[in-house]
Amino acid sequence: MNPSLNIDHTHDASAASWVASANAAGADFPLQNLPWGRYREAGSQAAWRIGVAIGEHILDARAAGVIDTDDMNALMALPPAKRQALRHALFDGLRSGSAKQQEWQALLLPQAQAEMALPCRIGDYTDFYTGIHHATAVGRLFRPDQPLMPNYQWVPIGYHGRSSSIGVSGQNVRRPNGQTKAADASAPAFGPCQRLDYELELGFFVAQGNALGEPIALEQAEAHFFGVALLNDWSARDIQAWEYQPLGPFLAKNFASTISPWIVTSEALAPFRRPFARPAGDPQPLPYLDGATNRAKGQLAITLEVLLQTEAMRQAGEPAARLTLGRADQAAYWSAAQLIAHHSCGGCNLQPGDLLGSGTLSGPQREQAGSLLELTEGGKRPITLPNGEQRRFLQDGDCLILRAWCEGEGARRIGLGEARATVLPAPALPAAQS
Amino acid sequence: MNPSLNIDHTHDASAASWVASANAAGADFPLQNLPWGRYREAGSQAAWRIGVAIGEHILDARAAGVIDTDDMNALMALPPAKRQALRHALFDGLRSGSAKQQEWQALLLPQAQAEMALPCRIGDYTDFYTGIHHATAVGRLFRPDQPLMPNYQWVPIGYHGRSSSIGVSGQNVRRPNGQTKAADASAPAFGPCQRLDYELELGFFVAQGNALGEPIALEQAEAHFFGVALLNDWSARDIQAWEYQPLGPFLAKNFASTISPWIVTSEALAPFRRPFARPAGDPQPLPYLDGATNRAKGQLAITLEVLLQTEAMRQAGEPAARLTLGRADQAAYWSAAQLIAHHSCGGCNLQPGDLLGSGTLSGPQREQAGSLLELTEGGKRPITLPNGEQRRFLQDGDCLILRAWCEGEGARRIGLGEARATVLPAPALPAAQS
Repeated sequence: MNPSLNIDHTHDASAASWVASANAAGADFPLQNLPWGRYREAGSQAAWRIGVAIGEHILDARAAGVIDTDDMNALMALPPAKRQALRHALFDGLRSGSAKQQEWQALLLPQAQAEMALPCRIGDYTDFYTGIHHATAVGRLFRPDQPLMPNYQWVPIGYHGRSSSIGVSGQNVRRPNGQTKAADASAPAFGPCQRLDYELELGFFVAQGNALGEPIALEQAEAHFFGVALLNDWSARDIQAWEYQPLGPFLAKNFASTISPWIVTSEALAPFRRPFARPAGDPQPLPYLDGATNRAKGQLAITLEVLLQTEAMRQAGEPAARLTLGRADQAAYWSAAQLIAHHSCGGCNLQPGDLLGSGTLSGPQREQAGSLLELTEGGKRPITLPNGEQRRFLQDGDCLILRAWCEGEGARRIGLGEARATVLPAPALPAAQS
Repeated sequence: MNPSLNIDHTHDASAASWVASANAAGADFPLQNLPWGRYREAGSQAAWRIGVAIGEHILDARAAGVIDTDDMNALMALPPAKRQALRHALFDGLRSGSAKQQEWQALLLPQAQAEMALPCRIGDYTDFYTGIHHATAVGRLFRPDQPLMPNYQWVPIGYHGRSSSIGVSGQNVRRPNGQTKAADASAPAFGPCQRLDYELELGFFVAQGNALGEPIALEQAEAHFFGVALLNDWSARDIQAWEYQPLGPFLAKNFASTISPWIVTSEALAPFRRPFARPAGDPQPLPYLDGATNRAKGQLAITLEVLLQTEAMRQAGEPAARLTLGRADQAAYWSAAQLIAHHSCGGCNLQPGDLLGSGTLSGPQREQAGSLLELTEGGKRPITLPNGEQRRFLQDGDCLILRAWCEGEGARRIGLGEARATVLPAPALPAAQS
C-alpha cells in the first residue's frame, strides 16, 4: 500500500500542540496539518527559508534540524517514505509534551511578521479542466449546441499554462489590456479587459518526477503527488473569446495566477480521501486511467469558498462577502492521480514542483459556481453584494479571496489558508507607433 | 536606432578568421556568425561551459576573457549594447591577424569532440502559429468550411508549450502512446501514435525580460530579441485530433521538442532583415503590433530545409533525402518583435531564455511544406523517398533533420546548424489496473 495514503498517529484528532494557537477551534494549521512554505521576516532581504505553518506561527524547519536544505524542490523530490518521516518528526516535535519545545520555541516566527514566497520553483504549470459542472456551464455559453465535448469523459482535458506569472497570495493583479472583438464590429479593438474574472481551483504539486519517455502508471501516481494549494486562475473572458480558436486560451490566462503560500501535503489529506465513483451511465475510464486505489480514494473532500471585498466595502470596514461555497469532491471528474498518469502517459516528463491546476471546481448548483462567468450567466445577471453593489465581472479595487478546508467525522479540521489578490487598473496603453 | 539592427564591420563579408574551417565556402559558422551555445568535452562529466561556434570548432568564451559567467541566461539578459560589444570582442579576436590568436588557439575544441546542452534554461516555452500557409493547409484538414479563423490576421495566435521536454539536437524521441478515436468508433483507444509528424519552426529566444504588468512596446521589442535556433515541434496528429477541443493541443505536443544547439544572434542576422509587408487587401495590424521599424526590417530572410533519413537509408549508407526547401520570409505572417509585443501586451512577464516558437513555416507551394501533414495531405498521398520507401507519417528509426541558413547579396552566408533527432518505438503500454 502506498504510504502516502496511510492514516497513522499524525491524524489523531485529539493530539494537541505546545503552540497554543494551533489548538484553536477552526485553526487552518493544527498539529495534524503541517504544510510547507517559503518565508522570511517581512521587510528583510534575507534568503527564503523553508517553514512549516503551525497555528499562527511558522517553524524554521532547517534550524529545527528536520530538513537540511533551503530548496523546496529538492524536498519535494524525496520518496514518499522520507516525506512521511519528515511529517512524523514535525508532529512529534510540535506535539504537547515534546522534549523539543524549548529548542523549537525560539525558531517560531508569527505569520503576521512573515513575508511569503512562492512555495517552490514551478518549472512547468499545466491547467486541467476537471470541473465537469464548470465545463458544462461554460461550454453552454460558447457552444449552446454542444456544451460538453465528446472527449470530456475520456480525456482529462488540459493545456499548458504560464509559469512566470504565478504569484503568491497578497499580490496585486493588473487588469490586462488585450484584443477583443464585439460581435457586431468589423475589426477588433485593443484596450483594458472588460470581463475580468477569477477561477476557483486547486493546484496539485508534483513530488518526484519521471524521466522523459517513461510514463507514470496510475497506481504509482499517488507517490508523485506532493500536495495541494489554492489556485486562482485569473481569466479575461473577452480576450479569451476572441483569441482561443484554434489553439486554446493564451493571453486571457497568462497575465497572472495566484496561489496560496502553503502546500498541504498528500499525507495530511489522507483522512479526507473519498471514493471516486462516476455517475451511473458514464463510461469507465480507459485502463491507464482506472485503478482500484483511485476508485477507493481518488476524491478529495475539500470545502471551497470564494469571497469578494470591493474597494467600497474595504473603505467602509465591511468584511468580504461570500460568493461561493462548494466541495471539490462534488466538482472534479478526474483525480490528481489521474492527471499525473495522463500528463505523463505519452512520455512527458514531470518535475518536482510542477503545478497541475484542477480547473474551476464548480458544484452542480449555481451558488457553488467557481467563477463570475457562471454566477452571472456570462454577465447577463449581475450578482448583488450585501452593501448593494453589483458585479457582472471584477472591477478595479476588488479583492478576491479563495479559502479551503477539510473536515470530517473523527478527523481534525485542517485548512489550506487563502489565496488573496487585489485588482489594479490596466496599465496605460502603449503609444501608437509611427 | 536600435543597435541590434546595425550593420557594422562584423558583417564585412570579406573578413576571414585564423580558424581555417570558418573560411570554407558554405560553412555555417564563419567569422560573421558567432552563435552561442553550451558544451563540454564529449564523454566528460564536466560542467557546461558557454562557447561560440567558429568553423568546425568551439571557442571557450569565458576562458577567452570575453564573458565572466557560465550562465547563458545571465548573458542573454544583457542590454543590446553589451551584447553587441561581446560580438565585437569575439569578431576582433577571431579575425585573421588578431593578436589573440595564439592565446585563443588553445581554447578551441573541435565540435566533433563536444557534447552540446540546451543553450540556456528555458523557463517558459510558447509556440506561435505565424505560418499562414501552414495554418490554412491544416485548417482545411480540420475545418474545410473555415480553414483560417477570423482572428488569424489580427491576433498572433499562440499557446503555451511544455518546457521540460525540450531537448537538443542528437536526441532520440520516443513515439508517444495516447488516446485516439477512430471516426467510426464508439470509444477511444490507448496505444502508440500512428500519425507522428514533425514541424519545421524557428525558435526565438528572449533576451532581457519585462516585469509582470509592464508590457514591451513593439518599437522596444527588438531589444528583447536575443536570437534564433531551429525548432522541431514534434506532433502526434491522431492524439491532437481527439484531445484538442476546447483548450488546444496538449499531449500531442509535449512528449518532445528538439532545438538546434546554437543560438544565432539578432546581431548576426542584421544583414538578413527584409521589409515585412502584408499581402494587398489584408488588414493592417492594430497599432500595438504596427511600427515603422517592423515594417522596414521585421522579416528574416532565412532558408529552411527538412531532410529525412530512414533506418533503411542509414543502413545502406544513403544520405538523408530533402523533404522541403523553403524560406521563413515567405511563410511568417508575424515577426519576432510582434510576437514579443503581443505576448507581453497583457502584462505577461517574459524572462531571459524564454523560447517563442514561430509555428510551422510552410511556404505557399506544396514542396515548401513544413510538416508531413501538409506534404501528404493528412496522410492521404504518401511521399516516395529516393530509395522507393514511402511515408505518410514518421516510422520508428526515422531520423529527421532541420537545417537553415541565410545568404544574400553582399553578405557572408551564415547557418543555424541543424536540429536532428531519431524516432524510437513507443514504450510498452502500462499494465492494466486491477
